This record gives sequence, structure tokens and C-alpha cells, in this order.
Amino acid sequence: MGVNSNRVEDFSSHETSIRIPSTNTISPPMEIHSVCLPPKKTTLQKLKHRLSEIFFPDDPLYRFKNQQWCKKLILALQFLFPILQWGPDYNLKLFRELAMQSLQIYHQFFVPPLIYSILGSSRHLGVGPVSIASLVMGSMLGEAVSYSQDPILYLELAFTATFFAGLFQASLGLLRLGFIIDFLSKATLVGFMAGAAVIVSLQQLKGLLGIVHFTSKMQFIPVMSSVFNQRDEWSWKTVVMGFSFLVFLLTTRQISMRKPKLFWVSAAAPLTSVILSTLIVFCLKSKAHGISIIGHLPKGLNPPSSNMLSFNGPFLAVAIKTGLVTGILSLTEGIAVGRTFAALKNYQVDGNKEMMAIGFMNIAGSCTSCYVTTGSFSRSAVNYNAGAQSAVSNVVMALAVLVTLLFLMPLFYYTPNVILAAIIITAVIGLIDYQAAFRLWKVDKLDFLACSCSFFGVLFISVPLGLAIAVGVSVFKILLHVTRPNTVALGNIPGTHIYQSLNRYREALRVSSFLILAVESPIYFANSTYLQERILRWIREEEEWIEANNESTLKCIILDMTAVTAIDTSGIDMVCELRKILEKQSLQLVLANPVGSVTEKLHQSKVLESFGLNGLYLTVGEAVADISALWKAQP
Amino acid sequence: MGVNSNRVEDFSSHETSIRIPSTNTISPPMEIHSVCLPPKKTTLQKLKHRLSEIFFPDDPLYRFKNQQWCKKLILALQFLFPILQWGPDYNLKLFRELAMQSLQIYHQFFVPPLIYSILGSSRHLGVGPVSIASLVMGSMLGEAVSYSQDPILYLELAFTATFFAGLFQASLGLLRLGFIIDFLSKATLVGFMAGAAVIVSLQQLKGLLGIVHFTSKMQFIPVMSSVFNQRDEWSWKTVVMGFSFLVFLLTTRQISMRKPKLFWVSAAAPLTSVILSTLIVFCLKSKAHGISIIGHLPKGLNPPSSNMLSFNGPFLAVAIKTGLVTGILSLTEGIAVGRTFAALKNYQVDGNKEMMAIGFMNIAGSCTSCYVTTGSFSRSAVNYNAGAQSAVSNVVMALAVLVTLLFLMPLFYYTPNVILAAIIITAVIGLIDYQAAFRLWKVDKLDFLACSCSFFGVLFISVPLGLAIAVGVSVFKILLHVTRPNTVALGNIPGTHIYQSLNRYREALRVSSFLILAVESPIYFANSTYLQERILRWIREEEEWIEANNESTLKCIILDMTAVTAIDTSGIDMVCELRKILEKQSLQLVLANPVGSVTEKLHQSKVLESFGLNGLYLTVGEAVADISALWKAQP
Repeated sequence: MGVNSNRVEDFSSHETSIRIPSTNTISPPMEIHSVCLPPKKTTLQKLKHRLSEIFFPDDPLYRFKNQQWCKKLILALQFLFPILQWGPDYNLKLFRELAMQSLQIYHQFFVPPLIYSILGSSRHLGVGPVSIASLVMGSMLGEAVSYSQDPILYLELAFTATFFAGLFQASLGLLRLGFIIDFLSKATLVGFMAGAAVIVSLQQLKGLLGIVHFTSKMQFIPVMSSVFNQRDEWSWKTVVMGFSFLVFLLTTRQISMRKPKLFWVSAAAPLTSVILSTLIVFCLKSKAHGISIIGHLPKGLNPPSSNMLSFNGPFLAVAIKTGLVTGILSLTEGIAVGRTFAALKNYQVDGNKEMMAIGFMNIAGSCTSCYVTTGSFSRSAVNYNAGAQSAVSNVVMALAVLVTLLFLMPLFYYTPNVILAAIIITAVIGLIDYQAAFRLWKVDKLDFLACSCSFFGVLFISVPLGLAIAVGVSVFKILLHVTRPNTVALGNIPGTHIYQSLNRYREALRVSSFLILAVESPIYFANSTYLQERILRWIREEEEWIEANNESTLKCIILDMTAVTAIDTSGIDMVCELRKILEKQSLQLVLANPVGSVTEKLHQSKVLESFGLNGLYLTVGEAVADISALWKAQP
Repeated sequence: MGVNSNRVEDFSSHETSIRIPSTNTISPPMEIHSVCLPPKKTTLQKLKHRLSEIFFPDDPLYRFKNQQWCKKLILALQFLFPILQWGPDYNLKLFRELAMQSLQIYHQFFVPPLIYSILGSSRHLGVGPVSIASLVMGSMLGEAVSYSQDPILYLELAFTATFFAGLFQASLGLLRLGFIIDFLSKATLVGFMAGAAVIVSLQQLKGLLGIVHFTSKMQFIPVMSSVFNQRDEWSWKTVVMGFSFLVFLLTTRQISMRKPKLFWVSAAAPLTSVILSTLIVFCLKSKAHGISIIGHLPKGLNPPSSNMLSFNGPFLAVAIKTGLVTGILSLTEGIAVGRTFAALKNYQVDGNKEMMAIGFMNIAGSCTSCYVTTGSFSRSAVNYNAGAQSAVSNVVMALAVLVTLLFLMPLFYYTPNVILAAIIITAVIGLIDYQAAFRLWKVDKLDFLACSCSFFGVLFISVPLGLAIAVGVSVFKILLHVTRPNTVALGNIPGTHIYQSLNRYREALRVSSFLILAVESPIYFANSTYLQERILRWIREEEEWIEANNESTLKCIILDMTAVTAIDTSGIDMVCELRKILEKQSLQLVLANPVGSVTEKLHQSKVLESFGLNGLYLTVGEAVADISALWKAQP
């Protein structure tokens, strides 16, 4: 075993020449390690292992191991209802959140947010109906039934569709298909967030300018044309009030950002604005009739509607289809929003749990007169902005909101809508993360492309299509990397067994008569043609170089397979074919360090046998040493 | 430098204990190599390099380097017209091919196959109209214009659509987007081939049973129901004749397969059958009226139709849309068929050239009264079956066909259609490669799934959809590998610097206080969440193991990044976050051997700085040695 060291030292003594005359120096036989197959497993065992890695990578049941049954029960309850885990520590926070949500969703649904608070794993997600799902549901149901002609049937269909949407979402979660959301990358989310923030801000121009007839669309062009086409509806009183409070809110935000100690300034600003503006409108009642106000807030829970779900009749297919489409749309948006805010606060959102929470929320919603609800960007932004402060402000806020809810509710009658618009704009503007976009540009151009696609897609096309394009770009990037992988020529670093890129390490030296190539990707159908061509081109170029420099002829090609983490049948055929092609050119092909699964597949397909004893080595170093020794022995 | 060897030998002397007490043995400071960044390049240079690897991996112009201009001209002509390259060597073969094609496509197009022979790079592809493109074009044009009401407008639209299909196909080739066809893996093609062979054979039941009214559909169910619903049209004379010749052809095929020396038996069989059956029908003229015959073969070239192309008018959009859809469908089929036969004969089909050839063929076709043509499976199968023999049979066949074409044409009047059906069935049956399917099952279950999908998709749904599903499965497989990559715990092989999988190499030993993990995949948005969870689980399990076995506590996690061939911003964030999480647990995170592009990105995003001097090493061995030495120095 000590033999290794001689060889290493010999290597280093030839630093002056570019090539190491291997046949002279690597003479003593070194210990050669054989390449092992991974431990034998049946197809069923392999399948089981693979499936558990795919669906249960987090080993969700590990907490239950070696526990008493009562502890197990508590853990199971905590697992099913995340609220039990963090609820006890966050009583006030929880309360505040519920209160905030109740306030924000004033004429809206009460049951879904409640369900979400108990089941959901995101702590900032504000749930409610969102415009995309609403639009899609409206148009899909409208094609089948007219609301004006048969309102009851229409409502029945809406609730039934909501039920199916929830069922679909919950089953995705139950089937542990949460990894689907992994395809929403941070780059995509930065773009999505900025695009949504711009669109939501622009939509608030309705309230800010006092426009009455406004588009319900969510794209840049219809919103802007709506703003400018309705110039006669602009109300100067609303504009003055809106922009004054907007300036006030933005100023307080700047103050808090510059001096973190003054965080309470921006935290208290929204409530101050609401109270102040309500007082102004109340005092100037007679003179402020141009300013639209919230008016009566209906109280009480949603009426039950489970009797309105109908699972037969000619419209069932329409209801199921609408449910599926709105279900997947709202799920995508909800989880994107949830992940966005989770990334900001550095916690993980469990995709599977999230899908189940949103799903059960909608099933429950369909029984309490709600249509499809999901995580909403603007609601979450307000939540986040209000909740991103320390515990002190949480207590203050929660108490304030509680008092408001219990005693001051009638006073909101006079709160002008323009204030809500100003608060929302202030909340979402902070979410345009141009610094992150700049960093993407600097580090990874394709990530920046995905980011831009989702930004412009959301802005000009629609939220789901923008997201789909961005996911497409991201997947394309993966496929591009697989389709056109890197191949690197390696050289020996003198004095070591290390073989590294000749291009990257200046001290690395070519080994004469060898061409050592590292393939930096799995070998798949999608790249086997390319790789074969590319390797043959390497050899051609190497031989041209040898001819030009009068070096000793090429005899052996070593493929360093360390980074070839998988191979399929096309890849195996490629390796086999490459060996035959090289054999015809009197060149030997050697594989070094194939990983477990690759070795196994090469073995199963009988390709390893054709390589023989001198075709497979554990490391590049051992291959070079052994083959050189062999050449010396048989000149 | 000689120091290494001491360390190596020390390692080996501790084989008896499971853990190497690293702090005792690895004492002398070893030479540590620093990790280099790749040579600096501007964004533009990187983009240029990347694009040339994506679009010109074969370096298509290398033949032109250092050549005289007249040689360059010849090379350019050969590059543009592959026929010039192989034509001179294959005069007879070429002639035979053209002759065969002319014979087969009896009442069909003449110009497109001619163009293809000159421009195409596949030598077995039989071109002509195919059923999918025909069906799609018929239904899409039929929606806009009725053939019975305005046949001239209909034809105009058909030729215009064909022109656009060709234009689209040729531009895909010119833009060097040929790598799109790389996504048709061999596994997919095995399934596609078998499915198409079954369908084509079943469709020949029309001729074999003498059915007159037969479906034009290409799916299993309509074809079979057509066979059994038209039982009253079955003609016993046709059936007897057909099956006799089918048995004859299959027997000769078996003979040739068993004894390769008798190859001429199966090569001569089809022509013999044609002559024999024609003679039988001719002699029994009066008694054979139940057997359908070919009848008159129209001669002459296609009439020019360039005056019928119309590039304005209200139907231009329909023509363009139809052209795009049929263009991509026929391209997919043509290239799939071409690659299938190329794979059988082990030659490469250049996707870009192939697209250009098919495209120009269709542009020319649209000017000579042809609609969309492409590579056809049944035509190619007959070509392949006829041409798969040695040169001798080629000469025999070519002469026979030539004589037939020139002098015996009128005799084909009496050739029964049933013989053509029997020949086609014999040709395609040999293409059902059940052995390849079995090999797929044995080596790669997911490849087998892709194969089955394309088989059943083609059989029961449609050729393009079957292919699309199979491509989807293949892409899903790539994404699955990326989404759920392997992580492997490494150990040291005594007496070496080699670190290998503990699970796979029994002799590999854990290094105490270290957890060495190899990540076997790029780190992307699609797997960063998974990898972070999985690495934390490894650490958790390792700590449990340590507690159970009273080993020394875990202090350092080494990530072997050799197989991490790329990283994106999500991956960088993951690495960064992981470092912070581990820091809180008093664990050190070390990266070993990141590849060039990964090192560069980590550097650009300033993450490397946070790792400091002892966070990045060239190899796992150096990391273990250096960090152990450091611990010993600062206990």
C-alpha cells in the first residue's frame, strides 16, 4: 500500500515538462480497488425506497418513534393541526391574526379563514376570494347558466364547484403531491410578487381617484385604460384625501425603515389613518359627499349552504370542470403567496399540508355560502406588514383591533374607501424587491429571465399564465442543462492523486497518451447523441493538438463518471457504441468511478462485461497508473 | 509533499476500529490546495460559448478549416446535399431506392421523394402522405371550407397550408432547433415502432380480408370494429390467397433469419409473390372477380400548382394554422421514423438537416400538387426490409425493379391488392422488438414505462398523442431525478485518499466527528427544499446513531460537491441557509470540490466569503486532514 506514495512523488518531480511521461515513471504495480455494485435489492424494495424518497423525504413519522401512545396522540394532533403546535406560544398573535382577518374581510367570508388558521402552515397568508378564481368561475358558470334568469341554480352550481375545487385540492395534499409547488422557484416568486404588487397598486387607483365604474380585469392595459377612460369620474376630494394619506403612510414607512427603533411609527400609521380619515369624513359629512364610504358592515356568520350542493342533474359536469380549473388556479396562487411570505420570514411551508388546508377550507366554505377562497396577495401583504413587527406592537395592535371590533364597529360606517386603497398600496409597494432582481441578474441570467417572465406575464397576461411561463422557463433551464451538459478535460495536479480541469487549474498537467474527460451530467436520451458527438470532437481536437505538438499518440480515453449520477438505456447504448467506435480507431475506453445506480445498470445490461478487466476503475488515478503499468509490461 | 504518504499509511493501520480517530493520526500538516475559479469571461463571451454549445455542438464547419477554396466549395455542396457525399459510392443503391419508392407510391407523389433523396440524411425513410397529417388537415380545412361546394378554394388552401408547413419545418432546421428531436428516446421509439407496426398490420386486414368499406382511422378500436362489422364483405378467395402468401412470406423470413447465408430467400420472396399472384389472377381472370386488383397505374409527374398558392384573402389564417399543426405533427412522425431506422442500422440522423429536407420537400410539394408529406412508417419498413441485405441482393433487386418499372408496368394491372397487404405485414412484423422491451424492463423501469406509454398511446389514442405522452414521461423522469436527487454518506477507503459510499463499499470507514455527504445532482429551485430537509435528516439520524453508539460528537459536515454540476439562486440560498442553521447547532459546514460554474456563482453571490478559509477545499481528503489538524492545534 505504501507504493502509492512513490508514484505520487514521481509525478511531482516532472513539473517542468507539460506531459508526464507516464510509461517511465509509473512503474511499480499499485493496489487497484475494484468497483462495487450497490447492495442487492429486489425491484419491490427499490420501488419502496424510491417512493418513500419521493413522497416522504422528511420522514414525517420520525417524531412518533419510541414514544408512548399518549404522547403519540398529542404529536398526531399537532401534526394534523399546526395551530396546536404554535398556538400555545402565540395566543395573542393568533388572536390578532384572526381579528385582523375578520376586519379586513369585512363584507366577506368568515368560515374559510378560521379553518385555514387551524390547518394551515403559513402564518401570514390572508385568505379570501381572489379575482382570478372569481373571474374564471363567473365566466365558466355563466356559459352554462345565467345568474339573472336562475339565481338559485347559479348559486347551487357555484357552491358545488367550490366543493369539488376543495376536494381536488385536499386530495392533491393527501396524495402528497405537494412537491408540485417546488417548481415555483424564488426567482419566479420575486417576479410574481413585483408584478402582483404593481397590478394591485394600480387597481387601488379606483379607490384613490374615486372612480365608480372600474374594470374587474387584472391586466395592466385594461386597468390603465379604465383609469384614463373614466377621467370624468375622478373626484378631487377623494384624490386630495387619498394622496395626503398615501404620502403620510409612505413617510412613516421610510422613517421606520431608516430607524428600526421607530418601528411603531409605521405600525401605528394605518390605524391612525383609518381613525383620522373616518373623523374627517364624519365631521365634514355634508361637504364630503364625493368621497365613497364603506357603509354598513353586515355582521354574523355565513348562513349554511350545504343543502344547496347538488351532485346530480345535467350541470354536474360543468360544476366539476369549473371546480377543477378554479381549484388548481387558486391553489397555485395561494401557495405562491404563502411561499413568498414564508421566504421573507425564513420558514418552511409544507406544500402537502398547505394543499389540504386550502382544500378543507373550500369544502367547509362550500357549506357556508362561500365560493372558492385561497391565499390572497393583498390581504397577506397587509397581514405581513402589520405583523412583521415585534411582540410589543402585536399586543398593541391586537388590543386596538379587538376594541375596534367589539365597540367601534358602527363608526366604520364613515371610513372612506380611499384610505383602504392607500393602506394597501403602502403595503404592497414594499414587496417589489428590485435588489433581489438585480442579484438574480448578476448571479444567474436564466433565473433573471424566469423572474422577468413571471413579472411581465402577471402584469400583461394573467397571474396563472405568467406563473406558467415562469415555471416553463425554469423547467427549460433544467432541461437545457441536461441536454447540453459540460464536458471537461482533466489533468493531474502534481504531487497528488487529484485530477482537475485543465482549463481551471493552471498547475494541472496533461497525462501523455491519455485523454481524461469528466462528463458533468446524467447520461440520458436527451443528451446521449450530443455527448457522443462532443466526446468524439474532444478526441479529434486532442489528436490534432498531438499532431501539431509532436506528442506521443493517444491510446486511452478515460471517462470520469463521478458526476454522471444516472444513466438510462439510451445512455447505456451510447457508452456501448462509443466503445465500439473507439475500438475501431485503436483507442481504449475506460470508465472511472461510476456511481452506484450507474454501475448497477451497466452491469444489468451486460455492458460492463464488454469493458473487461481494464475498462473500469475506482478512480482516475488508479486507471492511469494501472494502464500505464500494463503498457510498460506489454510494449 | 511526501507527507501525504505518511497519512495514507496511518489510515490503513486502523482497519480494525470502525472509526478512524482522526485527531490522533492525522497530525502532520498536509499541503492544502486552494479551489480555483474558472478563467474570467465576460457575460457576452459566456453567452457566445453557451450558444455555440447549444446550437453547434458538432462544430459543423471544422471540415472547412485550412482547406483551399475549391475544396471548400465541394465540402459545402456535400454538406448541403448529403446525396453528393454517399451518392458516388452508392449509385446502384440510390437508384434502387428511388425505383423502390416510385413503385411503392404508385398513385402518389413523385416530387417530394426526389427532393428528400437529395437533401435528406436518412437512407431508409420512405416519404409520402401519412394518415395523421392527412386527417388533421382534412378536418381543419373542412371546418372553414367545404370541398364539395368549392373544390378549387379547398385545394388552394391545402397547397397553401402545405407551403406553410414546409416553411415552418425548414425554419426549425435553419434555426438549428434539431435538438428538439433528442427528446424522442430509444425507449419511446421501441414502443412507437411496435404500436405503429401493430396498427399498420391491422389496417392491412382490409386488403387481406378483401373488405371494401374500411375505416380511415388509425386506432385499435375503430380498426377492429371495422374488421368485424364488415364481415359480410370478407371474400374467401382473397382470404385464402392472402394468408397463403402471408405464410409463404413469413416462412421465407424465418428461413433467412435462421440461416443468414440464405438471405436471398426472403429478399426475393416479395417480388416472387407479386409475380406469382399476378399470374394467378391473370390466368383465373374470370373466376377471380372477388379479388380486388391494383388496376391502372397513372404515369407522369405531378402537375405544377404554384399558381394555386394564395397568400391573402380571408382564409390565410386558417391555412397558416393548419400548416403549423400538420407541419409539427408530420415532422415529429417523420423524424421518429427516420431515427428508428437509423438506430437499427447504427447511423446518425442529423435533426437539423432532416427538418430542412422535410421542409424543402413540402415547399416543393406545395408547388407540384402535393399536400403535406413526411417519413412514413410502412413505406420505410418496406424500404428497410428490402434494403437491409448485402450489396449482392441490392444489385439483384435494383435490376429486377428497374426491369419491372421500364417494361412490365402494364402487367401490374392484375396484381391483387392482397399481396401488397401481405408484404407490408411481413415487413412491419419484424419491427416489433419485444426483446428490446424486455431489456428496458430489466434495466430501467421508467424507460419501460415510456415505452409502454408510446405503444399503448399509438395503439389506442393517436400517433402524436402517444408520442407526446411518452416524451412527457421521459421529461418527467429527468425532472424526478432532479427533484429528488440521491444523497450518499461517504467513508474513507483505508490506505487511500478515496472517499466512497459507506453503503456500497464495505471497506469504507466512517471518519469520526465528520459527516461526509455527496449530493448527486445539481442544486436547483426544484430540489433545494428537499435537499435541505434531507441533509438535516441525515444529520439528525447521524446524531441519533452517535448517541446510541457512544461515539465522539459530530462537529463538521462536509458536502462533496463533485456531482453538483450546477446551482441556481435558490440553491445558493439553500447552501447559505443550511450554513446558518448548522452554525446555530455548533456544526461547521464545509464544501469540497465544487465544479467551475458552481464556484463562480458562489463567489459572485458572496456566499463563499461567509464560508471563510476553512469552508472550502479541493477534495474531501484535504478537508478532513486540514480540519482535524486544526482541531488538534486548538483543542
